[in-house]
Amino acid sequence: MSTTTASTILRLDADLPLDSGQALSGVEIAYETYGVLAPDRSNAILICHALTGDQYVASDHPVTGKPGWWIRMVGPGKPIDTDRFHVICANVIGSCMGSTGPASLASDGKPHAMRFPVITIRDMVRGLVALLDVLGIERLHSVVGGSMGGMQALSLAANFPERAERVLVIASTARHSAQNIAFHEVGRQAIMADPNWQDGNYYGTGRSPDNGLSVARMAAHITYLSEEGLTEKFGRRLQDREAKSFGFDADFQVESYLRYQGSGFTQRFDANSYLYITRAMDYFDLAEEHGGRLADAFAGSTARFCLVSFDSDWLYPTAESRHIVHALNAAGAPVSFVELSAPHGHDSFLLDVPALDRVVDGFLTGVQP
Amino acid sequence: MSTTTASTILRLDADLPLDSGQALSGVEIAYETYGVLAPDRSNAILICHALTGDQYVASDHPVTGKPGWWIRMVGPGKPIDTDRFHVICANVIGSCMGSTGPASLASDGKPHAMRFPVITIRDMVRGLVALLDVLGIERLHSVVGGSMGGMQALSLAANFPERAERVLVIASTARHSAQNIAFHEVGRQAIMADPNWQDGNYYGTGRSPDNGLSVARMAAHITYLSEEGLTEKFGRRLQDREAKSFGFDADFQVESYLRYQGSGFTQRFDANSYLYITRAMDYFDLAEEHGGRLADAFAGSTARFCLVSFDSDWLYPTAESRHIVHALNAAGAPVSFVELSAPHGHDSFLLDVPALDRVVDGFLTGVQP
Repeated sequence: MSTTTASTILRLDADLPLDSGQALSGVEIAYETYGVLAPDRSNAILICHALTGDQYVASDHPVTGKPGWWIRMVGPGKPIDTDRFHVICANVIGSCMGSTGPASLASDGKPHAMRFPVITIRDMVRGLVALLDVLGIERLHSVVGGSMGGMQALSLAANFPERAERVLVIASTARHSAQNIAFHEVGRQAIMADPNWQDGNYYGTGRSPDNGLSVARMAAHITYLSEEGLTEKFGRRLQDREAKSFGFDADFQVESYLRYQGSGFTQRFDANSYLYITRAMDYFDLAEEHGGRLADAFAGSTARFCLVSFDSDWLYPTAESRHIVHALNAAGAPVSFVELSAPHGHDSFLLDVPALDRVVDGFLTGVQP
Repeated sequence: MSTTTASTILRLDADLPLDSGQALSGVEIAYETYGVLAPDRSNAILICHALTGDQYVASDHPVTGKPGWWIRMVGPGKPIDTDRFHVICANVIGSCMGSTGPASLASDGKPHAMRFPVITIRDMVRGLVALLDVLGIERLHSVVGGSMGGMQALSLAANFPERAERVLVIASTARHSAQNIAFHEVGRQAIMADPNWQDGNYYGTGRSPDNGLSVARMAAHITYLSEEGLTEKFGRRLQDREAKSFGFDADFQVESYLRYQGSGFTQRFDANSYLYITRAMDYFDLAEEHGGRLADAFAGSTARFCLVSFDSDWLYPTAESRHIVHALNAAGAPVSFVELSAPHGHDSFLLDVPALDRVVDGFLTGVQP
């Protein structure tokens, strides 16, 4: 059962320092919470969202009206059980659902647009930790994230090792590969090639780069699915017709589906945020931040880790998770790792994979060995 | 050694019938030949080009000045030995290097643009066979093609089974998968979203959809390479700088490379041709043309077949070639099949893979068993 709430928005008193050397003033963080915080504050779970995700992990989305993006995982009696845990999910900085991002107003009263500083995954995590500070949560029961959310969980574990007891990283990576960067660059070029982008100054002009953003989303969406999944779901089936049209309409279901995904996305997401967040992901290389050796990133960690990958995920394939597991082993950190079989590709972490539910529940509630 | 020649252009007397039910009048086919045709016309090899290829298989490209796209494979003493064989390579209809396509003038003296009929791989082959008719070549020694060229080779074998003794299909497929269609649809949407596309009527306006075409090429180009190849070639190395710029320049080599590939492509290719040829590939389903059973496509064949796939090709993976081999086996056609190990992904068929040279040479010159 999902509920719609207006997110709480917290304004940080202090400037937020950034990896670029700049700092952000007046940062606002929009967040949702679920479940009751225990008096000793020991039951807080921070869920970190993915590229186009948001804080509405288990609440209806205020723009689309759709249920929260992880409603199957988070709620009363669910694997992340809000009868037991206090769940926090915040919109990352750079995004567009209430936290400070390129669409937010700068000190001159105009939107930052491309004056917004380029941020990193670590900068996003700095924002999340600042939120935890205000909420008085010194140590999380767990930090949990899939995809870019997993990058944040890893970054938190590496840079703020005292802040989480458990780190659950699903379908993620410790660095963006050349292929990952390449796909993101296609998306950025699609946005920037749209004349309505106007060098990012489209706010209030009545024109926005919806076409470019839609193409970016379409290209990215393919990478979230598996070849097998696409074949199973669509194959070469035609859309609402008996025969090929010998034209350029969406003859095939997969074309129609992609167009729908692309145009729907523009209703809820800001193109400049897409530029900034993809850039942050491309910049992510946890080893590089720690002298080039990934194990050193986890040297100070006292957390337990759990890594999950999916066999059909070709965006962040199992080898990327295994790479992290090896580094954790080298750092002497306790880690469990499982590759799950699921047909949905990278998006498996969001979809119906009962084995994932068991892993999540087991890791969060299991007795320490 | 490459030589530049102006292509010969042949004008067909008869209309070319199309799968759409339409017909094309006054079709022109631009082609190149290499080597001497034997008096008994028994040594002709037809090479079919890929999506963005052309007839300049072993001659310098007249626009880019670059060597022919298969210069390493075709020439005196090369695996396709022009001291021995008469090689023919023609620009497919729908393309833009001299054969009739959307940029060609229609009967009203204006470019066809989007009035050009949607064509299929079989239509392309009809054009090639018409060319062979004029050249007086009743039976090819071999038809050879990689990628979309392989689709044409298969289509020729299925629809004109008496026209080729040997059929060599490299890194190809008998049907476009949902994922293949999806990537092409992204490219088409990128082109059509470019305001300079002007519903296809950009010829002579001084504006052409270069941005959209460039994005389309970038997205496609990723699919031609392997994740491993990209990592080996670029990894996360920076382009002409010591540190990240914290901006949206091409910080990473892979970004710079992709942008170069995209913009370079617009110098030599027509956006509408890209729409039409990708559509033809998406429509390709050889089994569907033959009652739904791929083996039936080859029922009348007397040719020998050779299929080659590459282990790093995720665009047309080995399973697609194996699917064809099984159908040929079911049809009782003699076929050899090899999966080659090469790091370059789909583009391996164009690159330095000595094992491919040996397979090609062996198949073309080997004694019949």
